[in-house]
This record gives sequence, structure tokens and C-alpha cells, in this order.
Amino acid sequence: MKKVVTIGGGTGSFMLLSGLKRYPVELAAIVSMTDDGGSTGVLRDELGVLPPGDIRQCLVALSDSPEILRRLMNYRFEDGGLMGHSFGNLFLSALEKVTGNFSQAVAEASRILSVKGEVIPVTVSDTNLFLELKNKKLLRGENEINQNMKVEQIGVSRIFLDPEPRANPVAVERLLAADLIIIGPGNHYCSVIPNLLVPGIPEAIRASQAKVVYNANLVSKRWHTDDFLLEDYIEAIDQFFGEARIDYVTYNTALPDEGLLTKYAHEAVLTERRAGSQREENRCVVIEGDFLDSEPVEYSRADKIAATRAFIRHDSEKLARTLIGLLGDL
Amino acid sequence: MKKVVTIGGGTGSFMLLSGLKRYPVELAAIVSMTDDGGSTGVLRDELGVLPPGDIRQCLVALSDSPEILRRLMNYRFEDGGLMGHSFGNLFLSALEKVTGNFSQAVAEASRILSVKGEVIPVTVSDTNLFLELKNKKLLRGENEINQNMKVEQIGVSRIFLDPEPRANPVAVERLLAADLIIIGPGNHYCSVIPNLLVPGIPEAIRASQAKVVYNANLVSKRWHTDDFLLEDYIEAIDQFFGEARIDYVTYNTALPDEGLLTKYAHEAVLTERRAGSQREENRCVVIEGDFLDSEPVEYSRADKIAATRAFIRHDSEKLARTLIGLLGDL
Repeated sequence: MKKVVTIGGGTGSFMLLSGLKRYPVELAAIVSMTDDGGSTGVLRDELGVLPPGDIRQCLVALSDSPEILRRLMNYRFEDGGLMGHSFGNLFLSALEKVTGNFSQAVAEASRILSVKGEVIPVTVSDTNLFLELKNKKLLRGENEINQNMKVEQIGVSRIFLDPEPRANPVAVERLLAADLIIIGPGNHYCSVIPNLLVPGIPEAIRASQAKVVYNANLVSKRWHTDDFLLEDYIEAIDQFFGEARIDYVTYNTALPDEGLLTKYAHEAVLTERRAGSQREENRCVVIEGDFLDSEPVEYSRADKIAATRAFIRHDSEKLARTLIGLLGDL
Repeated sequence: MKKVVTIGGGTGSFMLLSGLKRYPVELAAIVSMTDDGGSTGVLRDELGVLPPGDIRQCLVALSDSPEILRRLMNYRFEDGGLMGHSFGNLFLSALEKVTGNFSQAVAEASRILSVKGEVIPVTVSDTNLFLELKNKKLLRGENEINQNMKVEQIGVSRIFLDPEPRANPVAVERLLAADLIIIGPGNHYCSVIPNLLVPGIPEAIRASQAKVVYNANLVSKRWHTDDFLLEDYIEAIDQFFGEARIDYVTYNTALPDEGLLTKYAHEAVLTERRAGSQREENRCVVIEGDFLDSEPVEYSRADKIAATRAFIRHDSEKLARTLIGLLGDL
């Protein structure tokens, strides 16, 4: 079977893996480990555990267990002292405490949830994401970065992890052996980049024989990357490799409902291409198509984070079909 | 296979079932549903769920799943807003929310935990235990009853459940079909009696063709039943049946460590027999023996309730061997 490795964070990877798992490929999901918001943030602060939220979403996406167990993992308590906590986050954090080791917790959880494929934390070092603005202001943590409305206006001088983490050797191994490496979709600064900031990860991608695909986001986050065109994302990622490593880009050209666009205009804008760059200097092949999910999404009222994101979403089947199609070309 | 039904609560049933599960019998554990202390109390108050704690202990006792999963279920969070919560309680409460139904939550949990046998809430009505003292003071809930130090001194005028619950029809069915019904061990007012207060349960025990065994507690709780002799417990239970329904009583005659007895003398005293009543009026057969666990017990520092109870414990294997021996006589 062909080896497919995804790189991303929570919601984007959940969507992507939900589609890919239907195909006969060997899947490994590398997941960023710098989330510090919501239920995950509270657990990190109070229990000193590693961030479970993104890992949980990928486990659920790849789980072959009955629907009820998958619903349980995503269930959020709605009252009292537990309010807002995702049960699956508590599950991973308790497993980390019981096993004394996050990797073993993920392995046990994978077994219990009958996970097809592998979910791999990009690092098991306890680290945080920092973003320094050009005015020297330092934003600490995904949550603070996400909420800052001046990132684009002031500009980013650097983004880094501290303390410096060690790459999970399993992640490096899977990247080196991959046939196809799929980056994104996901929040640019808070899901995609935090994987590439882990020393050893860009090097492994560069050294790998795999074809590399980048799934461009449907929309760009306001105040963060709403000045980015598709080509800017590609360049920002390729910079980590020191070369034009991305072979393919999937780019949605279908238009979402006008009402939705207007309603969420304060949060995000459609990601656009640079005028006239239909195939920019042969750097990579941009696969244009309709990757849009037309089903409305329902969220739990206890999930304050999810309610504000991903209102315009990828259709996991459309995207997976295109990506799996690329395997035929390898 | 012979059908064995146990009736009890948390720690006592956990011990009993851990021993019985090694034998080739068809096990059903009927569990009291009036706990309102500790983690369980908080979950009932804040989430409006049924009490998970005792059910969890029985599920873990009968689980054939790997050790790590059983340890996870009993894990208690030790810090922050989750402190004191047992993971297994959160698991059952989240399952109740997701399935919308406590019985289904127990069924799903049984499947996930590969439970051998059945764990059956005595009722799925949301009810509370009340104990009225002879001075008309009303104690509401197990927690308040447990902590009251005047129960014995003032005396109990009545004990009841409110609102009046409906017996779980599965519990009634298992009792009627049982070969052996095992009552206790467990806290007299807060684990054993709350099962017998559920309308339909004593009637089913009376109507059943099963032999009935009562496992007398090793010790009697100070300020509650420390004036009880073995014969008083037997009579207190038989009163629910309106006849001498108990066929056998297991009664420990081995002496625990003198230091332990002294250390915990303020909490409990050894249960004694009435002088000269070696076989009281043929009402029932008292099986005397060494049922004492000689291993010291370790508790999580987060489990404030467990730390104060069961310092002198039954040995589950010794007790199970004796009980299973009775099946040969049937």
C-alpha cells in the first residue's frame, strides 16, 4: 500500500483524514502540539499534560469504532466545573497520567478506538508557540496569537517554539518513507507552521522521496493572513525547505454561499490567487477544483472555539478523491 | 452455568466481584444508586446525571480489558478544577449524556470494557436516600448520613428513598432466575439497605428459588452500627423479606493486626456475634472462617473517600472460594 502522511492540526486534519481513511492507503497523521486554548489550554495549565485536542480530533477521524464511541470522544460537558471540557481530551490526559507518557497514551487510545493508521504528535516536548511582531511585541501561545488583531497590520518578525522541541522520531521516520506528504489545510500560523518549526521535520520532508501536496485553505483569517494570496502561502511554507519543495497545491475555485461570506466577512476572506499566475514559473502544479462542503455544520454550544471557525469548509470526499488520484501518478 | 447475583454498592462489590469473576458462573451485579458523595455527588449536582461511582467500580471489577484500561477507569485527577474526579465517573456521565440514558451508558461501557457478566443499576430513577432519626431530624443523602455521628445514639426511626424509585426490571428478572443471591458486604445503611428499599427488589428475592447468602461486614461503622451484633444485621435485612430469607452468612473470625484495629478504633469496630448463638435457632447457617485480606491497601491521594474506609478488608479469593463452594450444595 502507498504511504500517505498528513501534517496539520485539529479541524483541518479531521476533515482530511475522514476522507482519506476510506481508501486503501497506509495513513499516518502528524499533528501539531502547541494548542493552548479552550479545554486543551486548561488541561495543560492545570494538569501539566501535553495538548490533547488536536490529537483527539485525528484519532476520532481515523477511528473504526462504533459511532457512539466517536460521539463520546467529541462530547463536551455543558455545565458545572467540567463545562467546555471535551471528554476525549480528558481521556487522553488521564491516559497520559496513568501511562506516564504521552506517546503511550496515544498508542493506548488508538487501540481502544480501533484507529486505522497512525496518529503521531510532531513532538512530545512540552513547548509553546511564540510570534514576535515587528514592533517587538511578543505573543505567547496559539490562543494569544489567534486573538491578536494586529498581526497583519504590524507584521510578523519571527515565529518560533520555546523551549526548542525534539522532533518525534516516528514522525521523521514516516516522512522519510512516505509516498505522499500532505500539508494542511489548517490555520497558517497556528496549525501548519508549528509543525514545520520543529527541528528535523522540514529536513525530513526535504530528504523524503515523497511528492508533497499543500492543501490551501479556503479562506484566510482576518487580521492575520488576509493579505496573503495563494502564492504567499506556498512561498511561506517552501521557505522552511530552502527550496520549492511543494509539488502540488489543491485550490478551491467554487464559490460559497454569498450570505455566509457576508456573515463571516469580519473573520475571514476567500483565499485568492495572484492575477495572471495560472501556473507560476512551474514551481508547482495548482489543482483547481470544487472542494467545498455544501452541508451546514452544527456545533455543540459548549465548544466555543469550533463555533467561530471553519464556517466554510472543505468537503472531505472531494478533497480525498483528488489527493488519492495523485497517487496514481507516482 | 449457575446464575449468581450480587447486591451491594461500591468497594464491597468490587472486592466480591473481583473474586467471583474467576469462576465459571453467570454473574450479575445489582448496584445501589443513591451515592451522592465525592466525585459522584458533584456530577449529580452539576450535570444532573445518575450516580456513576458504584457502577464504575463493578464494571472495573468485571472487566476483562487490559490492566491499563482498568487503571484508567479508577484514575482520579489530582489537580485543578478536575481534582478528585474519577475518570471512570466522567466516562459514565459523558456516556449518559451522549446516549441520553443511563442503562444504555452502562451497556456501552460494558462493551468497551469487555465486562464479563452484567452490571445492573438497581433503579434508573433519580432518587435520594433519607434517614430519619428518632428526634425527627431528617438526614438527606448518603453523604450526610455517613458523616452524622449521632445515628446510633439517637436511633433510626425510618430510612427511605424519595422520590420512590421503580425497580430496574432487569434486576428483578435476574433475581427471579438466580441460583445464588449474595447480599453485601458493604456499608449497612448506605450500600446494602438502599437496594432493599427499592420496591420490587425484596419481593423478587423472596419469590426467587435462589439460596441467599449475606456476607457480614468485617467491621461495624462507629456511631452508626457499632452496637450491632451479627444477628442484628441478619434481622435488619430479613425484615425486608417478612421472613427468615437468608440461608447462609459468611462471618470472618480471623483477627486483623492489633495496630490497625487501634489506629482505626475511632472509625470502626470488629463485628461480633451474640454470645452463645453459635447457630441461632436454625434461622441460617453461619459460615465462620478467615476471610481477611492481609495485604496493605494503597489509595490515590485524590480519593478522599476511599482513604477513610475499608482499612480492614475482605480477601476476595477466600470469600469467593467459600461462596462458589455453596453452589455445589444447590
